[in-house]
Formats: sequence, structure tokens, C-alpha cells
Amino acid sequence: MVRVRGVCVLGLGLIGGSVLRAAVAAGRPAWGATASDEDERAARADGFQVEPTVADAVRRAVEVDAMVVLAVPLPAVDDILREIASVAPECRLTDVVSVKRPVGQAVRRLLPRARYVGSHPMAGSSVSGWPAGSATLFHRAAWVVTTDDSPDVELWAEVARLALDCGAHVVPADATDHDAAVGRVSHLPHVLATVLAAVGADGGPLALALGAGAFRDGTRVAGSRPELVRAMCEGNRSGLLTALDDALGRLGAARGSLASTGSLGATIVAGHHGRASFDQLAATERDKLILRLDAPDALAELTELGRRGGRVVQLDGTTALAEVPNPL
Amino acid sequence: MVRVRGVCVLGLGLIGGSVLRAAVAAGRPAWGATASDEDERAARADGFQVEPTVADAVRRAVEVDAMVVLAVPLPAVDDILREIASVAPECRLTDVVSVKRPVGQAVRRLLPRARYVGSHPMAGSSVSGWPAGSATLFHRAAWVVTTDDSPDVELWAEVARLALDCGAHVVPADATDHDAAVGRVSHLPHVLATVLAAVGADGGPLALALGAGAFRDGTRVAGSRPELVRAMCEGNRSGLLTALDDALGRLGAARGSLASTGSLGATIVAGHHGRASFDQLAATERDKLILRLDAPDALAELTELGRRGGRVVQLDGTTALAEVPNPL
Repeated sequence: MVRVRGVCVLGLGLIGGSVLRAAVAAGRPAWGATASDEDERAARADGFQVEPTVADAVRRAVEVDAMVVLAVPLPAVDDILREIASVAPECRLTDVVSVKRPVGQAVRRLLPRARYVGSHPMAGSSVSGWPAGSATLFHRAAWVVTTDDSPDVELWAEVARLALDCGAHVVPADATDHDAAVGRVSHLPHVLATVLAAVGADGGPLALALGAGAFRDGTRVAGSRPELVRAMCEGNRSGLLTALDDALGRLGAARGSLASTGSLGATIVAGHHGRASFDQLAATERDKLILRLDAPDALAELTELGRRGGRVVQLDGTTALAEVPNPL
Repeated sequence: MVRVRGVCVLGLGLIGGSVLRAAVAAGRPAWGATASDEDERAARADGFQVEPTVADAVRRAVEVDAMVVLAVPLPAVDDILREIASVAPECRLTDVVSVKRPVGQAVRRLLPRARYVGSHPMAGSSVSGWPAGSATLFHRAAWVVTTDDSPDVELWAEVARLALDCGAHVVPADATDHDAAVGRVSHLPHVLATVLAAVGADGGPLALALGAGAFRDGTRVAGSRPELVRAMCEGNRSGLLTALDDALGRLGAARGSLASTGSLGATIVAGHHGRASFDQLAATERDKLILRLDAPDALAELTELGRRGGRVVQLDGTTALAEVPNPL
């Protein structure tokens, strides 16, 4: 095993730019490439290594068996995979795109020999581009590393190590579980924020003038760049549709109950419990446990750990130190 | 005109407690009363005057022709109006309850001779009770003062002066416009936050473990005390139903479009525009203008000012200094 594996980041926007900074801060040899002249100039001005083309960056990755990190929006994934395929068909590869099944499918179709494990750091901002990034963006954030893209647990650990080096904790999950979960907690919030912002604006200047904390917080992510939000939400059609149907059912029930009985009790109490569960999970005591990565069912155990709200916080050779909420 | 009018605050939770503190900070003689032993003890411990009963507090208000401020949740309004009626049927009265038509109707029914103008400061928090309040809670906040509860513009100006003394700017609005607007920008956000929190929790520990900024911000107000959220939202049935129908229509259209064409473009672009309008209104240049309160149509002009996103920032005798967004 290479002790300090190089990192080659393709795409230097908010997320990719933060991965490059965090990898360098962790002592990794790291470089990038981007199709954006603006991000390229800004990254170079900040002292980071940017190769002129994706092909150059990936060739350099092959020379030292570095980890290639795809950090482009979903609609750009196919093209960049084709570029990689012509230069480095067997590269080590992960991605930090917000949806996992479609990226895994694209990799299997266009770069089938890549040593690929998908990933997704749960951090972001409503601003974008290189200048918005930072080496600490992922500190204390959850970073999903998929357990079903490859049967090679060593490869899983390589990607997990990058996430840990960036200051995140690792949540193992299979791609389908991931997409269902982020449909609920990441993509649905974006759709609800846009709906709320539009309904507020429908009320004219008086309504907007009365918008305070609840409206400001509830619409914050509606300020994100529309094309990025579209790419993210539309890329998770199946996971988001399930979440939307759940939301429509609950909202329709609230409407019916308010109109017929005047009560919003069930809706408000369920939501209060949901938010309390979220706060409790963040604050709960956690049991430590050791997982052996050389056990035959290691990937299945990791998947189960993630389903229970657990996470990996340290890797050491073939052992992973994990934390699970207590009581489960 | 009394130059420094006393303020009698009934209810010393987050909002009432902040009004009492802000009135004292502004140099007003001010005292309160509350049904909560806890808030009473806490307010006294902080050095504020708390009368033993509502009747005591209101009797004192009558002696000096002070402004009585109702600061209780909507379900408690009728009872407290009956208490006031037996002691001070002609008192100066306003309220800081989050809905205006139902309170106005209750006042006309139970305290018809009160000199009443309704109001509503757009500030709050997901915590409640006296300890959560502060003298600066209303700084730079919008504070609605209703233009249709009384034809007496002097009375309107008295309530507006209290809002200005508390550090807010005054948005004039009739009660129906107010309730429609807050249905969109205050009550709907609470319902959407509870729906989002419940949908997230439906995803189990993995989904909650992946909840980041978008989920945290989108569910923040779901952490508020359920009985206060219910009182607020259920009290504005008509305004909230209109907002809910708008939201359901938009969310259903988003769902249909995602399922049939895979696009969320229209939804996301409309929401982005809505949020941009909100940010623009907050940041826009404003024209100053003077309104004469002794003009025959002063209340109608104030109402129109509010509809255009304008506000009153200063009162001086019979003139009001107003600001309107530019360009309108």
C-alpha cells in the first residue's frame, strides 16, 4: 500500500476545490483540473497545482497510482468519464457527486475497468465556485462511501481514508440507500425551499416585507444556483419522487385536517418529533466498536452500521474504529 | 398627548417579555402581568415590575391611560379580554398576537369600547418563555400596525410609536392583508418545516445522519413548542389554507413534471426568483417620503404604503417619515 496516496481532483468548484485544499492540508500530494478558466486561475493564484487538461491530470494520476476524484455536476459526468477512459481506463476512482446510483451506472458503462467506489460528502453552501471552498468545509461532516460499487474492501478503505483526511466521518451505505436518504434530507429540502420562496413572492411586496427568520431559513437554499440544484435533484428522480410523495401526502393531510376540523395537531407533533430525533442523533452518546475489514462480510457489516446511524471515525490497517448511537 | 405613555404588558413569554424590556429600555414606565409563575419570578428577578394579577396591572394602566399590550397566545385571548372588560372597558389596547382578524373580532365582541389597534412584530425564536426574550429582539424587525381596527389615526400612531421605541420599523396593513401575508411567510414555513422533519425521520437513522445544512435550516422552526405553533397556525385558518393550496399546487406540479419529463426547471427557477425578490427587497434603495397623519385619507395611504413594501421609520407630531422600495 502506498502510505500517502496522491489525489487528483477533476472539477474545482465549491466541493472539488475544498477536496483539493483539504487533501493538501492533510499532507497528500494533490493536483486538479477544471473546465472553468475562472476556477483554474483562482486555484493557481491560491498556490495550488492545476494541470492544463483533464487528460494531463489523469496521466499524472496513473504515474503514481493516485486517487482520481470526480467533482463535477452529474450532467458533466459522462463526458469526463469518456476523457478518463482514453487515458486511464484502470484508474483508482471515486466521485463526490450528490447522487450515487446514476454515477455508479455511468462508471460501469463508460469506465468498466476503473477501480471505483463512490462517495458523497454532506457539506455545501448556497454559494459556488473555487473561492467559496475551504480546507475545513468537511470538518465534522458526514461523508458517505458506498459499499456496493466494488467487492474490494481495500478500495473502500482508500476512499474512506480520503474522507477522514478531509476531516469528515465516514457513513457507509449502499448506493440505493444513499439516494433514498438524500432524497429526503437534501433534495426534498431544496424543492420545499423553492416552493416556499415562490409562495412568499406570490404574496407581493407586503408578504416579502414581513418575511422573518422562519421564511429566511426556510428559503435559504432556494438562493443556490438553479442549474446546480436542478442537476442534483433531477439526477435523483427515484429517491426524490418517493420523498415528494411522502411530503405531498403529509401536506395534503394537514390541509384536509385544517379545513375540516381546524386542527394541525398531528402534523405539528409529528414534525416536532422528527426534528427532535435529528437533534438527538447528533447529540447522542455513541458506543465505540472495532470492525475488521478483512472479515469476509466486512462490506455488509459496514452497510448495516450506516443503516443504524453509525459511522467510521478512524482507519488503522485492516481495522476500522466505528461509533454507533446508544441506545440504538 | 401624554409625552411618555406607560406600557402594560399582559403575558411575559418571549414576545411580551421582550416588549416589556424594550419599553423600559426606551424610557417608558412599564409593567406586566402573567399567568405563568415561572415567567413572573424570572421577570421580577431581572428587576422588572410584575403586578400580581391582570386586573391589578390593568387598573394601573387605567390610572395613567397607559397602553395595554396583549401578549398571550390566541387561545388565551378571549379569557384575558373578559378580565380586562370587568376593570377597564375603555382602555387603550393593542396586541402582539400572530394573527390579526381573529383578535380584532374578539376585541369587538368582548371589549367593544376599547381604543384598540392591533399589531404584530415579525420576530421570534424557536425558544420561548421570559428567559428567551431580550430588549433588542425587535431591532430592525418589521412590526405590523393595523389600519382598519380603528378610524382614529392618533391611536394608530400611539401603537406605531411603541413599535418604533422597541427598535422596529412599522409596516401598516389591514388585518386581512396581514393574515394573508403571514399565512405565506410565517405560518406556511412552520407547516413545511414540520412536514420536512417528518419525511426526514421516516428515512430512519441513515437519513437523519446525512441531514446537513439544508435539512437543519429547513426544519429549524419544527423545534418550536408544538402548542405555540398550533395556536399560531390554526388561528390563521383562512390565510394559511390559501398559502397551503398554493404550495400544494406548486409541489404537485413539481412532482408531475419530475415524474413525466424529469425536469424541475420551472419549480427551481420560480423559487430562485422568489428568494431573489426577498433579498432585493431587503437590500434595495428606498425613497423617503413624508405622510401627513392629519390628512383625511391617512389610514388608506398608510395601507397602500404597506402593500408596496413600504414602512414608517419615524413619527413626529402629525407627520410620519416613510420609506418605499425604489424602483417600486
